[in-house]
Amino acid sequence: MKIYKEKITFKSTAQVEFIDITDEVQQVVENSGIREGGVCVFLQHTTMGIIINHNESMLLQDFMRVLYHFAPIDERYSHDLFELKQTNKSDGRSNGHSHCKAMLLGTSVSIPIESGKIMLSDIQSILAVEFDGSRERDAIVHVTG
Amino acid sequence: MKIYKEKITFKSTAQVEFIDITDEVQQVVENSGIREGGVCVFLQHTTMGIIINHNESMLLQDFMRVLYHFAPIDERYSHDLFELKQTNKSDGRSNGHSHCKAMLLGTSVSIPIESGKIMLSDIQSILAVEFDGSRERDAIVHVTG
Amino acid sequence: MKIYKEKITFKSTAQVEFIDITDEVQQVVENSGIREGGVCVFLQHTTMGIIINHNESMLLQDFMRVLYHFAPIDERYSHDLFELKQTNKSDGRSNGHSHCKAMLLGTSVSIPIESGKIMLSDIQSILAVEFDGSRERDAIVHVTG
Repeated sequence: MKIYKEKITFKSTAQVEFIDITDEVQQVVENSGIREGGVCVFLQHTTMGIIINHNESMLLQDFMRVLYHFAPIDERYSHDLFELKQTNKSDGRSNGHSHCKAMLLGTSVSIPIESGKIMLSDIQSILAVEFDGSRERDAIVHVTG
Repeated sequence: MKIYKEKITFKSTAQVEFIDITDEVQQVVENSGIREGGVCVFLQHTTMGIIINHNESMLLQDFMRVLYHFAPIDERYSHDLFELKQTNKSDGRSNGHSHCKAMLLGTSVSIPIESGKIMLSDIQSILAVEFDGSRERDAIVHVTG
Repeated sequence: MKIYKEKITFKSTAQVEFIDITDEVQQVVENSGIREGGVCVFLQHTTMGIIINHNESMLLQDFMRVLYHFAPIDERYSHDLFELKQTNKSDGRSNGHSHCKAMLLGTSVSIPIESGKIMLSDIQSILAVEFDGSRERDAIVHVTG
C-alpha cells in the first residue's frame, strides 16, 4: 500500500468558471505509479467547489443559472460586511454568494483507479468550479493504492 | 492492507426514483473479506446522484419536491438543445434538469467499516437517485482495509 | 498502512447550528500516530450535514438563509405526518426540512493529512451542521495512512 500526493495548479479567468482538471488528475495518478486504488481531489479553498459531470458548455451554463437561483449574486450577504471591515476593500465586490455555492458543492471528490486509470465514464469530467475569480488556484491530488 | 472492487447493477423503473442499494453494498463488503476499513460507492453516471439518509417514502417525496424547486423539469435548459443536435432525438425529453440535480448530490459516498459491517445507523440507507430513468445503472463499490 | 478510528461527541444547543469540530478531528489524527494519509469524517445522522468552509458567523447566517429558501421550515413536509404517526409526538415539530437540508450537504468529508496535520487552509474549518437540535451528536473519524 502506497500513498502519493501532488499539488496541481490552475488559473481561473472569470468570476464564475468551470475548469476541467481531469487530465491533470490522471497525470498525477500516472506519476504515482499506483495501478489499483483510489484518488481524492481536495480543494483548500472556500469560494470554489468541485464536481464530476459532463463538460458540455450549455449544460454548465444551465447549472450556473440554477446555482444563481440558489444563492443570487445580487442579494445582500452579511458576510460582505465582514469582508469589507477586514480588508477595507472599497471595490464593493460581494463574495458571500461564492462561499454559499462552494458549501453546496463541497471540497472534494473521490474516484476509484483501475489499471492506472481514474474510473470515469467517457462523458464524466472533474470540474473545479470557480465562484470568486479570476485567480490562481490549486488542488491536492491524493492517491492511495 | 487490501483493495477490493466490485460493480453492482440495478434498474430504475421511473424517470425519477430513489433506489436503496444498502444491502448490495454490504454484500460487496462481505465478499471482500475486509473487516476494518472503508468503502467508497462511486457512480459513473451524470444524471444520477447518491446520498445517505432515511429511506422513508414520504420523506423522499418531500426531497424530490425540494429538488424540483432547485432545478424545475419544466424550465428551459440549453443542454437540451445540445442533446437534440447530438442525437436527433425527437422525443423532446429534457434531461438538463437531471444533470443539474445530479451535480448537486454528487457521484460518491464514503463510509467506514467495522467488524465487516458498513457503519450506518439503523435509519440510514444508501440511496442511488435516478433523475433520467428508467434504465440499467451500476455503481462501483471500492473497499479498502 | 494503518487504520485508526475514533468517535467524537459534541452537543448542539439550538435547532439549527454550525458546530466547529476541526480541533477534535485534528486531535484524533494525532492520537492515531498517522503522519501521512487521509481522514474521513462520517456522520451517522439523517438530520445533520457536514461541510468545510470559513467559520465566520455572518457567513454562516447567510448560508442558513440560503438553505432556508431551498427547504423552508414552514412548508408542509409529508414526512412530518410519518413522524407524527410513528412517535405520537404532539409537539408538532417538523423535521422534514431538516432531512432535506442534510441530504443536500452530505454525511462525510475527506481530507488529506501531511506531517500529522489535516491539510486545511487557514480559513477552512470542518463544520457539523445541525438541522434538528438541540441534542447529543457524534461523528466517526476514520484515519488511514
